Amino acid sequence: MGWGVIEVSGSRLSHIANGICHSVGTDLGARLLSLHEQLTDVIHQWQPDAAAVEQTFVNKDGVGTLKLGQARGIAMLVPAQAGLAIGEYAPNAVKKAVVGVGHAEKHQIEHMVKLQLPGVKIAGADSADALAIAICHSHHLQSAGTLAKALAKAGA
Amino acid sequence: MGWGVIEVSGSRLSHIANGICHSVGTDLGARLLSLHEQLTDVIHQWQPDAAAVEQTFVNKDGVGTLKLGQARGIAMLVPAQAGLAIGEYAPNAVKKAVVGVGHAEKHQIEHMVKLQLPGVKIAGADSADALAIAICHSHHLQSAGTLAKALAKAGA
Repeated sequence: MGWGVIEVSGSRLSHIANGICHSVGTDLGARLLSLHEQLTDVIHQWQPDAAAVEQTFVNKDGVGTLKLGQARGIAMLVPAQAGLAIGEYAPNAVKKAVVGVGHAEKHQIEHMVKLQLPGVKIAGADSADALAIAICHSHHLQSAGTLAKALAKAGA
Repeated sequence: MGWGVIEVSGSRLSHIANGICHSVGTDLGARLLSLHEQLTDVIHQWQPDAAAVEQTFVNKDGVGTLKLGQARGIAMLVPAQAGLAIGEYAPNAVKKAVVGVGHAEKHQIEHMVKLQLPGVKIAGADSADALAIAICHSHHLQSAGTLAKALAKAGA
């Protein structure tokens, strides 16, 4: 499970950290516990103000979807435990926000993430995706913020 | 999400408690957090020595499977956080252990749970299932224990 942290100052984005949590253990409970501990450490270390998680692709493989769901339950729980609201974005929405089209290839996402976060060193494909989700969420929050200001101005 | 706690003394089973956790909140993170808090309270209150969770049925509904998976991730995490090993049983294995056949109806499960746990008041269908899983797990642990004793005796 990849993760990424970015900083947003106005319209300027910068990279803070990214990495991959590997589930460790022989049984499912232990593996989910290790994911929970690693993600909790990430949240404690970087103290984000907002969080977002990919809306996992549901394919026709029920066993795969169940496994994704179990890990995604942990990915949603940890920021909720930290009191954060959690954005959810479909993979195509993330690609559209970062690359400009909804059907971008993996390497295009990584390329655009590197362009938008100068100097970033990406730990792996899953953390490139996580940084892309963070960028997508920052756009979304900025649009929402701009709209709120416009509404406030119209109301004043 | 139903839960049930039983006590095992030799081959004698007795009911301790059962109930249902309702996920509360408007967004997914909050709902998973509420499940986590309620299940954590159950574990703290009853201090079980063992735990078991149903191996969720995977049907062709990807969205439903993902939702089950997310909740199941929490159901597995909480006993793992308490240091408990977690048994996993397919619904048919639970039915076979409690009713004697793998394709029992809901009302048969509830009937057999009531027979095996005299005086039990069942909070709902999901907690009847949870008690059935607990009974199945107790049979499994007893068989394993008997086997371990037989092996120890053979080795002595």
